Amino acid sequence: MLIHSATQLLTLKGGPQRGRDLGSLGIIEDGAVLIRGEKIAAIGRSDELRASLPGEPSLDATGCVVMPGFVDPHTHLIWGGDRSAEFAMKMSGMHYLDILASGGGIISTVRATRTASIETLISQARPRLLRMFAHGTTTAEAKTGYGLQTATELRLLKALLVLDHESPMDISITFLGAHAIAPEYKDDPQGYTDLVSCTMLPIVRQWWEVHAPRLPLPFVDVFCEDKAFNLEQSRQILGAAGELGFPLKIHADEFDNIGGTSLAVELGAVSADHLVKTSGADIAALARSDTVAVSLPCTPFGLAEHEYTPAEKIIDAGGILALATDCNPGTAWNESMQFAIALACRYMKLTPAQAVAASTINAAHAIRRADRIGSIEEGKQADLLILSVPDYRHLGYRFGTNLVKQVVKHGRVYSVDVGYYRTA
Amino acid sequence: MLIHSATQLLTLKGGPQRGRDLGSLGIIEDGAVLIRGEKIAAIGRSDELRASLPGEPSLDATGCVVMPGFVDPHTHLIWGGDRSAEFAMKMSGMHYLDILASGGGIISTVRATRTASIETLISQARPRLLRMFAHGTTTAEAKTGYGLQTATELRLLKALLVLDHESPMDISITFLGAHAIAPEYKDDPQGYTDLVSCTMLPIVRQWWEVHAPRLPLPFVDVFCEDKAFNLEQSRQILGAAGELGFPLKIHADEFDNIGGTSLAVELGAVSADHLVKTSGADIAALARSDTVAVSLPCTPFGLAEHEYTPAEKIIDAGGILALATDCNPGTAWNESMQFAIALACRYMKLTPAQAVAASTINAAHAIRRADRIGSIEEGKQADLLILSVPDYRHLGYRFGTNLVKQVVKHGRVYSVDVGYYRTA
Repeated sequence: MLIHSATQLLTLKGGPQRGRDLGSLGIIEDGAVLIRGEKIAAIGRSDELRASLPGEPSLDATGCVVMPGFVDPHTHLIWGGDRSAEFAMKMSGMHYLDILASGGGIISTVRATRTASIETLISQARPRLLRMFAHGTTTAEAKTGYGLQTATELRLLKALLVLDHESPMDISITFLGAHAIAPEYKDDPQGYTDLVSCTMLPIVRQWWEVHAPRLPLPFVDVFCEDKAFNLEQSRQILGAAGELGFPLKIHADEFDNIGGTSLAVELGAVSADHLVKTSGADIAALARSDTVAVSLPCTPFGLAEHEYTPAEKIIDAGGILALATDCNPGTAWNESMQFAIALACRYMKLTPAQAVAASTINAAHAIRRADRIGSIEEGKQADLLILSVPDYRHLGYRFGTNLVKQVVKHGRVYSVDVGYYRTA
Repeated sequence: MLIHSATQLLTLKGGPQRGRDLGSLGIIEDGAVLIRGEKIAAIGRSDELRASLPGEPSLDATGCVVMPGFVDPHTHLIWGGDRSAEFAMKMSGMHYLDILASGGGIISTVRATRTASIETLISQARPRLLRMFAHGTTTAEAKTGYGLQTATELRLLKALLVLDHESPMDISITFLGAHAIAPEYKDDPQGYTDLVSCTMLPIVRQWWEVHAPRLPLPFVDVFCEDKAFNLEQSRQILGAAGELGFPLKIHADEFDNIGGTSLAVELGAVSADHLVKTSGADIAALARSDTVAVSLPCTPFGLAEHEYTPAEKIIDAGGILALATDCNPGTAWNESMQFAIALACRYMKLTPAQAVAASTINAAHAIRRADRIGSIEEGKQADLLILSVPDYRHLGYRFGTNLVKQVVKHGRVYSVDVGYYRTA
């Protein structure tokens, strides 16, 4: 199949895009992409490819932007329960501790997740995954972390494998048993740290070999913050994970700067995520490394806070910056990478071109899949988007809606355009 | 047709909701609405209405919220041209005057609008209207104002009448010849003020009687700011409009406080819109009046500014607060009232209940249609939404996506749910 006549074809060729190179879109005007099976077979100008391929089935992208599918490298896709009432309390000015006392906060999600069956968890996650896909995300990372006990964490892993298998979307799975201190251990955080590092991780390793023998190991992630796992506990968990062969990620510097980002670099983590309170020394460490800085602008927005990732400093230093939604029930229930881009342009002062690169090729690097996805290059997976706009800068410029018209995933075309039809 | 089993049916009965009454949703749990033709015929509990109406065709809203359609009382729906490149320049830190010099700013939209045919203007506005409808807006106000010359302003009025006629959406039309000083008059703002008040308004009055004899007169609006029409010029235009029988609106206090809001109250305007720099005296005047304060939170968001309408002060004083998108190409291209609600909860500290009332019944008051729309009451237009969520507080809590599953407009059901289907 030949997708042709794209007003702008963004290839995002090469990468990762570091520092001031961020935003190199590799635009071909009046561009075309040839798809063979699930792969990209050729890229070029429409007139040339059309002339050389008479009779090829075609998809006309006149007036549209064609670009790689978004890669969302940080989501908490799967959880139980409903915290919409808690949001209303927060906006009424109720204090965090009073919300906790009234049964809210992350532990309420943990409670609901533990009591939910795998069928319930899957059926609640499915519409979130559908929304992501309809908004142009073709590959998403998704974490466990609302179980905080071995059996539930394994149920979440299993649910994510099922969703990955049944959905057109590809899911990159992360084990986040260290998302918070489990309620049973609230007075013994070291005890829970030992449980994760000495018991859960070896069990997950074995479980994965049985349940997903053909897939690479999942990422292991830890929430490194004053109120969760301190630096030494984070080092213990990630160190144990590394010895077991897991690739590593970290939540760092969302509320406090306690050294998580530099730890991630030291341990060779694939990414360090959040990065709001990140210090100059941390940024310098990032810039010397291949650890991707994953910024989550939906989180400060969701909390109505005004401090975002110091993106310009990370870019100036030469770091690799990516964007993600952080989709989760506590701080940022948003499935759309387009909205993360709109925030990044406004509050992190990225250009639309930088934000697009941070949401595609660099985001693919943040989940170690840049060999297959994140750009439109010969031999890569045919994962791409047809936007209903003639200029990629409508991303960022416009907000609150969906500019994707069609999603191409593994070479198959799905229509997701906004619309309505009369039913009664 | 009976819509039944709504987890929450929000009636928004009564209104307008003033001051601390704002947020009275009139919730019926397990609620039902009976629709006969284009009107609402009965409201009640599902068990009672179902028992009394055996055999009635039904629509099951189990697990869903049913609520009035959103009313968007301030949009600039119709324009020509494309300013996405200008957005990228702004985010790169380019100064406003340099953008103007490079051909950007409102005058670039005026130039493109003047040269566009009515067919082009309509075909560009149509997808915006479709997005509004798909996001749950069942009635939208829409302004002229990118013509700034009589012929183009009339073409915009005509295009809006066509769109109102062809679309399931209802459009409430506003004449905004006084949107900016026309470029031909940049050194003679008083000359343009005279043109609007002495020439355009009488022409519009006559034109309307010919082209829309059965519709009430459109609103007349003016942009009252230091950089547009000063207080005396605004008074001249609105005064002339009032004498011709037009109902009035005003853009006031977006960037400067020069008295526009108090002028609106003095002249009995239906609404005063923007209201960011509004003074205590203006708020006191609003609170004693029936002039609706229409807040446009997408505009400071779009501009990455941090100052929003002082909503709490307006509520505390007893004013009538409404929300709108301000959908426009310069500062806020967003068609979704759901996103205006998400912003209002975060940056104006409205509760989701207050934001919902401000987007329905109070917004209907802001365009003088509260007798027909804005609430679910017997005899009103059957304009309502079925949301794919079990609690109305998902509005506000969630952002960046669309929670509407079905739109009921004039009693007809349209499916707009997020989704995808494979096409190749």
